[in-house]
Amino acid sequence: MTEALARFSINQMTVKQLSLPELVAACTDLGIPGIGLWRAPVQSYGIEKTAKLMRDAGLTVTTLCRGGFFTEIDPHARVKAIEDNRAAIDEAATLGTDTLVLVSGGLPAGSKDLGGARERIADALAELAPYAASRGVRLAIEPLHPMFASDRCVVSTLTQALDLAERFPADQVGVCVDTYHVWWDDQAPAQIARAGRGGRLHAFQMADWVTPLPEGVLNGRGQLGEGSIDMREWRGYVEGAGYGGPIEVELFNEALWAGDGKELLAETARGYLRYGSPAGGLSG
Amino acid sequence: MTEALARFSINQMTVKQLSLPELVAACTDLGIPGIGLWRAPVQSYGIEKTAKLMRDAGLTVTTLCRGGFFTEIDPHARVKAIEDNRAAIDEAATLGTDTLVLVSGGLPAGSKDLGGARERIADALAELAPYAASRGVRLAIEPLHPMFASDRCVVSTLTQALDLAERFPADQVGVCVDTYHVWWDDQAPAQIARAGRGGRLHAFQMADWVTPLPEGVLNGRGQLGEGSIDMREWRGYVEGAGYGGPIEVELFNEALWAGDGKELLAETARGYLRYGSPAGGLSG
Repeated sequence: MTEALARFSINQMTVKQLSLPELVAACTDLGIPGIGLWRAPVQSYGIEKTAKLMRDAGLTVTTLCRGGFFTEIDPHARVKAIEDNRAAIDEAATLGTDTLVLVSGGLPAGSKDLGGARERIADALAELAPYAASRGVRLAIEPLHPMFASDRCVVSTLTQALDLAERFPADQVGVCVDTYHVWWDDQAPAQIARAGRGGRLHAFQMADWVTPLPEGVLNGRGQLGEGSIDMREWRGYVEGAGYGGPIEVELFNEALWAGDGKELLAETARGYLRYGSPAGGLSG
Repeated sequence: MTEALARFSINQMTVKQLSLPELVAACTDLGIPGIGLWRAPVQSYGIEKTAKLMRDAGLTVTTLCRGGFFTEIDPHARVKAIEDNRAAIDEAATLGTDTLVLVSGGLPAGSKDLGGARERIADALAELAPYAASRGVRLAIEPLHPMFASDRCVVSTLTQALDLAERFPADQVGVCVDTYHVWWDDQAPAQIARAGRGGRLHAFQMADWVTPLPEGVLNGRGQLGEGSIDMREWRGYVEGAGYGGPIEVELFNEALWAGDGKELLAETARGYLRYGSPAGGLSG
């Protein structure tokens, strides 16, 4: 099944019950060629050590998640955020990935000013984008579902993400498209095309939309095929826009985390083949 | 405080612990001139009886909630939905309100076709809009927050709602703007202006956005002033677009429903005066 999985990447958060060595071994066993890493577990294990682990196994680091959280007003908090994002860029470079995914941040406590928060993201990108480029890293603004607008990410649509990204060179700032966050938006297909034309389609992630949403709405993403999103349709949009890169499956789901990590990884790969690949992927 | 509350209307769902006679008495006591009614409690109490209760108290029925649920594929289910919406139109006419709010419906079980579901809404409107007009009732399509796209309403933005509404005469089909559903959308202010220009701003509702969202995300709306939405800003958008009608406060909140209904009504009116009225409303 290696050929059919050539584009597949597992986002580390999907199988967070696995340690990094367990995850790398399981990917090797299952023929999974790429992993989207998260900063916290990589920092715990060691950044250089993670880079070597991945390299020695012949695995690709498809993205690093995540920089961002640019919306604070307090000057000290802003300086700290910029410093932390420089560190994230350095970590991405050390890990050998060209893409740092950005979750831009929600409203500061007490603020009701979405427009102002979005403008502060642009200010932060102006400081960070040239530095990222100097390290060979592209920043990928990820619009999050509007249900996260107040507490996690004031960038709610691909239109907004591209309006921000296009203030900077395409090789410095682009977007990350995640089906979970954009599937409801009838303007998203045209915005994917816009991103493709501009060379700003920097990452593509899949997760399915299932209801009822859990309290806090963060950890209720479904396995591909279990929800409302036609994964092939969205894959078609990004490929139609010229995207030929990795396809990460990124699920946050308490029930899935409670089970065996390697089984979950195999199940996720099967879901990708069945629902996220061109028809016939399973036999490929 | 009567003058300052002249535009205020309480949506019945906000204080659903009150019976209709209790609600009418409390509104009379507090100088609240309007109520947005819901079909189920009105049907339980009796439609003619509710109409008389409101009339005798000198209260206005600002809207009837709700028609809709137009997205089923099954022909029998569709016929039933149309019949039920004709009944809702009749009820609105009997109650003396000119506005029936529509919650359009989610994806049918097993379907992933948002576009198809949106098109079936247009088909249903084509059958219902002339009938509504013959009864003196306008249909108001309410876009619901995108977190409800799969299970409640595939119309997620004002843009989509107006694209649907504009297929019909403005005195037959317009939109209902609820701050809770559109606050995250930076295109909403321009769409409110579009609705105003077209004479399609048929209803305006307020609720605040608070997190964390509860499981199922339906019943977590905040009192005005407790969340992320600047109510005066949104009131400014609709008034700038020419809206001079009632302003309903519609909260769904388990914690608020657990308390005393009349106190909640008074608290909601105070929240409207403090956060939803022009500055100085409290002393008006």
